[in-house]
Amino acid sequence: MGNGNICVMKAILISTGDELTCGRTVDTNSAWLAGKLLAAGIQTVSHQTVGDDAAEIASSIRAATERAKIVLVSGGLGPTPDDLTREALADVLGAKLVLDEECLARLEEFFRRRGRQMVSSNKIQAMIPEGASPIDNEIGTAPGLMARFGESLVICMPGPPAEMHAMFESSVIDLLPASQSAVAVKVLRVFGLGESNLSATLRDILTDRQGNVIVSTTVSGGLISVTITATGDSASSASALADRMAVELTRRLGPVIIGTGDETPASVVAKLLVSRRETLSLAESCTGGMVGAMITSLSGASGYFLGSAVCYANTAKRDILGVPQEMLDDCGAVSEPVAREMARCARDRFGSDWAISLTGVAGPDGGTSDKPVGLVFIGLVGANTNKVFRHVFGSSREQVRLRAAMTALNHLRVALLEGDSITV
Amino acid sequence: MGNGNICVMKAILISTGDELTCGRTVDTNSAWLAGKLLAAGIQTVSHQTVGDDAAEIASSIRAATERAKIVLVSGGLGPTPDDLTREALADVLGAKLVLDEECLARLEEFFRRRGRQMVSSNKIQAMIPEGASPIDNEIGTAPGLMARFGESLVICMPGPPAEMHAMFESSVIDLLPASQSAVAVKVLRVFGLGESNLSATLRDILTDRQGNVIVSTTVSGGLISVTITATGDSASSASALADRMAVELTRRLGPVIIGTGDETPASVVAKLLVSRRETLSLAESCTGGMVGAMITSLSGASGYFLGSAVCYANTAKRDILGVPQEMLDDCGAVSEPVAREMARCARDRFGSDWAISLTGVAGPDGGTSDKPVGLVFIGLVGANTNKVFRHVFGSSREQVRLRAAMTALNHLRVALLEGDSITV
Repeated sequence: MGNGNICVMKAILISTGDELTCGRTVDTNSAWLAGKLLAAGIQTVSHQTVGDDAAEIASSIRAATERAKIVLVSGGLGPTPDDLTREALADVLGAKLVLDEECLARLEEFFRRRGRQMVSSNKIQAMIPEGASPIDNEIGTAPGLMARFGESLVICMPGPPAEMHAMFESSVIDLLPASQSAVAVKVLRVFGLGESNLSATLRDILTDRQGNVIVSTTVSGGLISVTITATGDSASSASALADRMAVELTRRLGPVIIGTGDETPASVVAKLLVSRRETLSLAESCTGGMVGAMITSLSGASGYFLGSAVCYANTAKRDILGVPQEMLDDCGAVSEPVAREMARCARDRFGSDWAISLTGVAGPDGGTSDKPVGLVFIGLVGANTNKVFRHVFGSSREQVRLRAAMTALNHLRVALLEGDSITV
Repeated sequence: MGNGNICVMKAILISTGDELTCGRTVDTNSAWLAGKLLAAGIQTVSHQTVGDDAAEIASSIRAATERAKIVLVSGGLGPTPDDLTREALADVLGAKLVLDEECLARLEEFFRRRGRQMVSSNKIQAMIPEGASPIDNEIGTAPGLMARFGESLVICMPGPPAEMHAMFESSVIDLLPASQSAVAVKVLRVFGLGESNLSATLRDILTDRQGNVIVSTTVSGGLISVTITATGDSASSASALADRMAVELTRRLGPVIIGTGDETPASVVAKLLVSRRETLSLAESCTGGMVGAMITSLSGASGYFLGSAVCYANTAKRDILGVPQEMLDDCGAVSEPVAREMARCARDRFGSDWAISLTGVAGPDGGTSDKPVGLVFIGLVGANTNKVFRHVFGSSREQVRLRAAMTALNHLRVALLEGDSITV
């Protein structure tokens, strides 16, 4: 992260665990922590993952304190013999582990409240390196640890994400030194534009890595996040810088921006349907229920979502939805007329204002030269809308399905916005 | 990883990118690579993530070569000004970047084949540090780089996972030195047992971290992976060690083991339905289509899956499935009779051999003292089966839905196995 003339405090993150180094588990703690630190005006310069080895953990902590004022360690505070972060921190501090009576009392209380017997191995979790302080764990047994080493603050947290998140939010955030600079992060969400096209449109902005405003892009399932990170000497100046850049990006990108923050086609559609007091139903084939699952992942979906007829078999398209057998025979299930009829039938059966249908070839098998893998027809029917969109999505079965599901919701989003602008 | 007396070759992985250090993107490359290396008998001792900073990347590479014979770098080979791995490697080697004519020709050919104009900034990707060799990239523009530094092999690959995976599988795996030891990895999948209960059952095995066989557990959505990693001086001895441990684990855990490798309740159900030539339909409420999406994520689902009536609204339960309005009024949608009726209706409407239904309170709102958040009824109906299971799942909306979906498939798995044992 370039940061002009403003001095930003630096952090290094260390994750411990053989399950991480061996690749059985993906480390999501570091990305989560880096995001939280950035919002607190602290820049993460490196993440490190080391195995369950006290000497390795200790040498990583030592090396990190030479390069960063803040070192956050996660993992290795549990009660089992492969939990070695306590020992490693004691080694770094040149201190021995001593029993902390207050921690022990809290640990015993934790088990008592849950009606469980505390086994003796749990007692190790009340051992604290001399010179370090415990950090309360509200949802698990392992207290965190805080110590100063040289000019750095070293904080150790449990590895399970839920415990780590809770400890960070309730305690650790308040232990961090106040940053002399402020960072504002703003995310624009773009759908329906390739990352390379976006890159060409924003080339001059994306290549400027030295100023106080850095713009980066990442993509997931066709949804691009354009992240603006602005550094300033106050929260308001950082925020103003970020806002100015957001205006410029919006000017260049226009309607492909679907929202900000963590908005998705599903969440934007939800907002629009609620505000219009309209309802939605679905008829899904190749996505198998994925669009319904996306919509209902949002709490409050019962306010606008009636249901989905997942008709994977042709008999189900006929018996559940009412698509004529003749149409299925003549046109094939993956066809424009069947997509249109599926949406029409769903709207009719569920009695919704809007209906979306999806029928396609998800692959990897079943493609023909006429109807290749990735071909998906998306039907969209409303009171004054009756459309079918034809797409060919690339890549794997999961990617075809995911892109199809998100694209279907995006077509509805556009239709709802067009409808809005007509009624205004 | 403990590894007794057997010497295992060590690797360090370096991922580069501001989007990783800042936490906008989770690094999945390291876990993927570590798994591939382990299967090749190479132990990953550390992952490191550094930003788009040539000096940082160079010093990470240098430090890594002091500790490991193999250093794999991913990211930073693209054409934009923040792609700095080439410069970093040149710095490490004390060499300058020179244009590789063969790489340039290949790059030009890449663009020609796709009918695109090669912009001049792409030419940087054909620049190679003197003393390094390029590695062909079959699906992207950035060639990889290979160099020796001291006693270590340093290999740089592109960051986008698809390109990195392809380059690793097609070229890098053959460039790695043959390991003098062999590693066998075997995974058992456990569902329906808490991780702490599992931990208690396997305590002695899980705490032995020094032998040639290490057993670890990770959990995701209630599905526990018990991973056996065995090291031996030959593939067959490692494999025999792993198999012996698998037998012992199976003896202790018994029927909660649902499968091996990456099997899930959905994939096991798929296998059983195919072998019995039976079909399945669903009636989903709280899961909104998630069970259908899980089933259809597997290619070949059309062989046994007919569809799902996602009936989120009560009117849909009545109109699409045929659940009597009176029953909905009297018992409420989240009730044992409605779950039973939903499954019966789905089996009838879709004409399937089996049907599963789910109705519950996913939360976070909508819970009562009678029907708390997390309460889910799962109905299961077959030719000779008519059951309703009552569960209360904890945690967040997404966790309730995910656990409910996996549990529903697991109930069907058990029923299919019981059926099998009766017919034998």
